[in-house]
Amino acid sequence: MNVQEQVTKFAQEAKQTSLTLAQLNKEQRNEILLAIASHLKAKQSFILKENAKDQTKALADVKQGKLSKTLYDRLCLNEKKADQLAVYLEEVAKQEDPINQQEWAMELSPELNLYRYSCPIGAIGVIFESRPEVVVQIVALAIKSGNAVLLKGGSEAAYSNRILFDLIQEVLTQYDLQGAVHLLETRESVAALLHCDNFIDLIIPRGSNQFVSYIQSNTNIPVLGHASGICHIYVDKEADIKQAIDVICDAKTDYPAACNAVETVLLHKDIAQAVLPSLCETLAQKQVELRLDQASMHIYGKQALLATDEDWQTEYSDLQIAIKVIDSLDQAIKHINEYGSHHTDSIMTTQQATADTFFQLVDSACVFHNVSTRFSDGYVFGLGAEVGISTSKTHARGPVGLEGMVIYKYKLKGNGDIRSAFTEGKRQYTHKLIQTKNK
Amino acid sequence: MNVQEQVTKFAQEAKQTSLTLAQLNKEQRNEILLAIASHLKAKQSFILKENAKDQTKALADVKQGKLSKTLYDRLCLNEKKADQLAVYLEEVAKQEDPINQQEWAMELSPELNLYRYSCPIGAIGVIFESRPEVVVQIVALAIKSGNAVLLKGGSEAAYSNRILFDLIQEVLTQYDLQGAVHLLETRESVAALLHCDNFIDLIIPRGSNQFVSYIQSNTNIPVLGHASGICHIYVDKEADIKQAIDVICDAKTDYPAACNAVETVLLHKDIAQAVLPSLCETLAQKQVELRLDQASMHIYGKQALLATDEDWQTEYSDLQIAIKVIDSLDQAIKHINEYGSHHTDSIMTTQQATADTFFQLVDSACVFHNVSTRFSDGYVFGLGAEVGISTSKTHARGPVGLEGMVIYKYKLKGNGDIRSAFTEGKRQYTHKLIQTKNK
Repeated sequence: MNVQEQVTKFAQEAKQTSLTLAQLNKEQRNEILLAIASHLKAKQSFILKENAKDQTKALADVKQGKLSKTLYDRLCLNEKKADQLAVYLEEVAKQEDPINQQEWAMELSPELNLYRYSCPIGAIGVIFESRPEVVVQIVALAIKSGNAVLLKGGSEAAYSNRILFDLIQEVLTQYDLQGAVHLLETRESVAALLHCDNFIDLIIPRGSNQFVSYIQSNTNIPVLGHASGICHIYVDKEADIKQAIDVICDAKTDYPAACNAVETVLLHKDIAQAVLPSLCETLAQKQVELRLDQASMHIYGKQALLATDEDWQTEYSDLQIAIKVIDSLDQAIKHINEYGSHHTDSIMTTQQATADTFFQLVDSACVFHNVSTRFSDGYVFGLGAEVGISTSKTHARGPVGLEGMVIYKYKLKGNGDIRSAFTEGKRQYTHKLIQTKNK
Repeated sequence: MNVQEQVTKFAQEAKQTSLTLAQLNKEQRNEILLAIASHLKAKQSFILKENAKDQTKALADVKQGKLSKTLYDRLCLNEKKADQLAVYLEEVAKQEDPINQQEWAMELSPELNLYRYSCPIGAIGVIFESRPEVVVQIVALAIKSGNAVLLKGGSEAAYSNRILFDLIQEVLTQYDLQGAVHLLETRESVAALLHCDNFIDLIIPRGSNQFVSYIQSNTNIPVLGHASGICHIYVDKEADIKQAIDVICDAKTDYPAACNAVETVLLHKDIAQAVLPSLCETLAQKQVELRLDQASMHIYGKQALLATDEDWQTEYSDLQIAIKVIDSLDQAIKHINEYGSHHTDSIMTTQQATADTFFQLVDSACVFHNVSTRFSDGYVFGLGAEVGISTSKTHARGPVGLEGMVIYKYKLKGNGDIRSAFTEGKRQYTHKLIQTKNK
């Protein structure tokens, strides 16, 4: 069997098992989550042992400059982080059931009733970075929402991903649900997955811009994700200067590699003089490299790199920041919509009306007022675990939790009803709501 | 300017205008809809004159066998149908505002509040068949939901589409919104549209299987639609035989070209003997060509075509039907999930438990119990106008109304909040609901 055949087989099994999963009630799905949680606790030493193998390899890579320290840190499990794995599952088990919920119901005509129910999407492919806990988080969300998944983790975490997958499989096998989760371990298998549009309903890629774009361009399967996170903070002419500086520093330095870190700061020309010197000093103290446009450079008066058009289009993912002086709110909004990635953008202003215009016109998943861009996160938003952040304009946008793994189906119940009776005027539609549309 | 440049320019204009549209309140958007309605009424003679040109050309094509009578009929406007154009706009104006609705709100921490609002998708490309009224329906839905649209209608309706577009533009120009609607008039322009992923957020193709598949395979833009409509009716071993026959006849003959017409009937072996002869007679009387599997052929005992595996995969869109005897509910569900197009499938049974299993396991957008598949329609479902029917598992499924043209954005309001305060434990998340999640 070649890679394509193998992955197609996995995808088909996932699709088939998703129908079985969809039949389980919430108690059964939660029971499985808790059974996996216990099993991971019981087998923690195995997990740590396998993770240590990944660590050894990764440390060598760090020394050779092939892997960043940040990625290495994300990879490492210790006892505390390993304990957390079971907690993810337990937390997800506690959440409300996202499927089999009646969303609304309508009498189309007497004794002909339509019901809309939430239901799982089916089979989902998730491709993610090297944090091993993601295997557990995604499996938790998938089983909770009745979806089967095919997982491909970062190769740096290969041993960790494998042991976690094996342990999860041991539990799923007891429930005859081993087809619900599959592990892909090579790049070729990702390429093969992209051709499985007969069986896979959604692909969620997490990773570099380049990688997500590659996925989007090479499959007919719907893709949920974000290709980049070029987030902005715009400081309005009327803003609390201390707040603005604090928020920008937090947004840049709290976790520079995160997709919700700020990359570009736009300063209104009327406040630039008051904000810029102190902002630049504060950032420079925190080792942030400044990229200033001509106007900012002029105000700052000290040595800094000149920002080019490329800077406005760059996700640094590191301690670098671009700063530009702009003439008006409109120009700021235009810049953000043109250069941004429609992820998260924040305005600092004391004027509610200005913030309202910004909320209305900035075409991003998350638009903030006097808040650091770093708050753009599924856990922070109270969505529970996060399957990813989407900058797409369909299905799910912004931080995506369980809701993004759910769709709906219509059920219509009657007594031998035929449409021609309505066409011929013998019967009429009443369209009476039985249960209100909630959205 | 070549075709690609022209279409890209249209797409860019649409995207820009969509932001202006998004700012209008519901009264302003409804006012535009009603202004278009009045204008179409006032200029009805122009519309009928242009439609007559399409009719003349189409009639010649019908005579030469290049166009079906059904398509010709769909193309023709008379005074009554032209009056209806304004009614579509007036009806959509009456509907609830789908955008700027607060879906839910949550306190993340004291004085740090998150709000989720419905909002337009942005710029949408809609490619549709030759019914000229679709231009008006789509424009009505688009303006109501704050979206800009690029329209490509069937070439048979070229004159009608052009005059309707011109009249709509005359009104939009008064509101300085002429960029909100664009008309594409060639096949090359559709191909060009598929490359406008920088500006177009969603494509809704309506048309033949082949055409929708072509769109899906040739763009990175999300596609909402259905490639085919292979709908089934399964007659359970315990079913009301008269009801079953009536429903099947309605589902096949009420409008055979519709995507919600039934194509395959599955009969449980225990009821086949009782249903089949009478069903076949009734269908044959209505000029329906029968394609029977071996078992059905044996029971029927008369001359009929033998169904092959290809029949189970065929959307006849005409007066043909395939009939197969199956052994069990499970086998019926398996057949439907394997050969169907996940559009609309119905079970005829007197047993609620059997219907429940069918509802749960048939993986289709619409699953019906004792009802003709022909009820699968946005207007019938009480959704108002319909932008299309989707068999996708993301965004919107089944008949799609205004809701399918809407997404949401998150707004977070604070007072200089920084994430590191939470990371360092100085502040805690409260995640208190301000307004309940409705979904």
